[in-house]
Amino acid sequence: MQNIKEYLNKHKDRFISELITLLKMPSVSADPAFTQDVLNTADAVKLALEEAGCDLVEIHETNGYPIVYGEKIINTELPTVLVYGHYDVQPPDPLGLWDSPPFEPVIKETELHPDGAIFARGACDDKGQMYMHVKALEFMIKTDQLPCNVKFMIEGEEEVGSANLGLFVAANKEKLKNDVILISDTGMIANDVPSITTGLRGLSYVEVEVTGPNRDLHSGLYGGAVANPINILAKMIASLHDENNHITIPGFYDRVEELSKEERAEMAKAPFSLEAYKKALNINAVYGEKGYSTNERNSIRPTLDVNGIWGGYIGEGAKTVIGAKAYAKISMRLVPNQDWKEITQLFKTHFESIAPEGVTVKVTPHHGGQAYVTPIDHIGYKAAAKAYETTFGKPPVPQRGGGSIPIVALFEKELESKTILMGFGLDSDAIHSPNEHFGIWNYLKGIETIPYFYENFVALQS
Amino acid sequence: MQNIKEYLNKHKDRFISELITLLKMPSVSADPAFTQDVLNTADAVKLALEEAGCDLVEIHETNGYPIVYGEKIINTELPTVLVYGHYDVQPPDPLGLWDSPPFEPVIKETELHPDGAIFARGACDDKGQMYMHVKALEFMIKTDQLPCNVKFMIEGEEEVGSANLGLFVAANKEKLKNDVILISDTGMIANDVPSITTGLRGLSYVEVEVTGPNRDLHSGLYGGAVANPINILAKMIASLHDENNHITIPGFYDRVEELSKEERAEMAKAPFSLEAYKKALNINAVYGEKGYSTNERNSIRPTLDVNGIWGGYIGEGAKTVIGAKAYAKISMRLVPNQDWKEITQLFKTHFESIAPEGVTVKVTPHHGGQAYVTPIDHIGYKAAAKAYETTFGKPPVPQRGGGSIPIVALFEKELESKTILMGFGLDSDAIHSPNEHFGIWNYLKGIETIPYFYENFVALQS
Repeated sequence: MQNIKEYLNKHKDRFISELITLLKMPSVSADPAFTQDVLNTADAVKLALEEAGCDLVEIHETNGYPIVYGEKIINTELPTVLVYGHYDVQPPDPLGLWDSPPFEPVIKETELHPDGAIFARGACDDKGQMYMHVKALEFMIKTDQLPCNVKFMIEGEEEVGSANLGLFVAANKEKLKNDVILISDTGMIANDVPSITTGLRGLSYVEVEVTGPNRDLHSGLYGGAVANPINILAKMIASLHDENNHITIPGFYDRVEELSKEERAEMAKAPFSLEAYKKALNINAVYGEKGYSTNERNSIRPTLDVNGIWGGYIGEGAKTVIGAKAYAKISMRLVPNQDWKEITQLFKTHFESIAPEGVTVKVTPHHGGQAYVTPIDHIGYKAAAKAYETTFGKPPVPQRGGGSIPIVALFEKELESKTILMGFGLDSDAIHSPNEHFGIWNYLKGIETIPYFYENFVALQS
Repeated sequence: MQNIKEYLNKHKDRFISELITLLKMPSVSADPAFTQDVLNTADAVKLALEEAGCDLVEIHETNGYPIVYGEKIINTELPTVLVYGHYDVQPPDPLGLWDSPPFEPVIKETELHPDGAIFARGACDDKGQMYMHVKALEFMIKTDQLPCNVKFMIEGEEEVGSANLGLFVAANKEKLKNDVILISDTGMIANDVPSITTGLRGLSYVEVEVTGPNRDLHSGLYGGAVANPINILAKMIASLHDENNHITIPGFYDRVEELSKEERAEMAKAPFSLEAYKKALNINAVYGEKGYSTNERNSIRPTLDVNGIWGGYIGEGAKTVIGAKAYAKISMRLVPNQDWKEITQLFKTHFESIAPEGVTVKVTPHHGGQAYVTPIDHIGYKAAAKAYETTFGKPPVPQRGGGSIPIVALFEKELESKTILMGFGLDSDAIHSPNEHFGIWNYLKGIETIPYFYENFVALQS
């Protein structure tokens, strides 16, 4: 790749201002109040792909939010890279904890980002990382260095389960045909410790409802005499982990593959400071499954967390009431070989079975996805590793990630190609949290690294 | 008492329309949004006492909502009855479960109220029952049959802990001097089974906050590796009861007095159908402390219930987040001899002690009150029992109640007089619940019965 540094220096201010414009659009897919904003964001992504030089850009309607498809086919004999990303973002709440409004991007320096970071919902997940690919494409096209064909598929429902993307992919296998899939929706260990995510956890997300009496009751007249749905829900949730924090759902671990001593030893080599980890979260201790390290707990082990709980009187002051219902949103992170639909069913069967007399329980699956592993001998991984070596000056560490990108497993099944997860964000970038941000340095480093992936990937063919 | 039935027949339509006017005022003391409505309701009560014939009616400002005081002193040699009630009401939510708006009273027939019942927040608790005393006073004054002195003290903070009433009582012992206190803020067993509440449970109401990491976290990156405040709160709440549903707080039961076999046998005579109870609540089983009947569980035994819980993402859709904090409102119903302040401290100490490493816990006491017992050989009780016998045609059943009127114990301490709890509502009147209502028959029967109490109380003197 020629002149990439020059091109970056010449255009970086524009690259940043274009991203900021995109970040001002509140594309919250989980909340119907933002419907029009999400749709406007799809249009903005379409325009960006056209300006980057795609020959063809289409907006594909779905039963949910549209999918933006773009392509630049230079020679059907050459390999094709499919880039996936999403233009929707997580809800910004709790709003009160943001230092600046989530959809009014500001650039501030941080300890880890001395060159400044853009603070906004979606800055890193995934608008910023998705847009790196758009700008890398622009560079390759404008400097006539695009070495192969490229296709973009940018969706608007990643944060709510990508239900319609699955249908779209299944229905458009030929259109989406490719030799490798490239996604930047993960992180790396540190700016001086580049890493590539080689594994993702699967996900099963459910909502539970516990119903007791047919109406809210006065806790004085009924307290202690009827099952209180909140107390019962607390008991049921508590029982989902044993004293070693193993999950108690029968069959939950049946398909979980234990890593070998060697593999765990290899993982343990990744730089990690427990003290720094605790300090960053302001906690006096970590907490999790007995027998596993923090890095193992959030990557190679399945977990169960309550993501939300509510019931009874949660307003100001005090109300002596026994609520008729209590609710919780519960998600399970899964590891390779665990089938999310099977786990969802195991959860449902178990949770219903532990409901005591006096209450009824309803379990509603939200969404889910399978775990995924990238083999490090795949030429896509090799092409990416070589690209990092060129731009970071050192090879990336292969790393199993704790997050889930459910559609990666689906891509492999439907499109029969592997996905390379080139993430340039940091775990401390607070994605899904207040004050999400993305380092300017990381953003530009991503744009610089991606073209080398294309070059290497083509060179490594045959 | 002469002509009471005639007076009732002549004026009952007005008695009902006056109450409906009062019920249209949304005097929700727990929610600052209703401040002006609560104040307007105090003025309406003042006016009603003046129209009933009080010589003196005053509005006493407090640090919270005002206390309405009224009196009719006919002869300082004669005994004095102090009537207590409250003009504030519980919050109406969940609004969606009301068949008609909570502050737009409607009269509908029900299975238990064939003569119709007034549906509105506060219909029974306590506007309707408080207003019975105002109308009974009107009858006695207008027909020149008031046999003794009467004082009214109607407050506006009963539903939020009566904090300022305590100060008012302590500061006005002489003004409030009386021979017996009369309160209608409880219920009776059934329209054909009159009962008088001879015991009330005490209350300790606290709010707890569990804090984990310093921000909301992505459950994929941190799930399973840090303490999730919601999971922890669920575990902590679950641990507050053992497998027999005994409360596990050390020292909690130390002062609880076990009733004798005889007393429990006496209680068991009160008519009660477990099937009807379950049917009314649409539950397939009752639930509670092992070794005690349903009626014992909600009257002579202390209990602990979560009245509200919240944390994490509780909006629409799914968010894969680990919330930084989780909260619960927890109340304990106490029995005679348990001291609510001591219990609150025991709870605080215990709850903080069971917090695992990785989280911090904050316990904030809301309010509380002591339990209370009325001796059935007190002349006030005898006067009331005789009044019921006259108007219901049968003596009332003495009954220990599960609810709490914290200030009753305070009255005994500060004013050195006993309280008689003449309740005319039914447990099924849904107080503190959607569709609260009060039977027309019960309302009028209360107005009819109260004057006989005055007559009997004076007659039983010396």
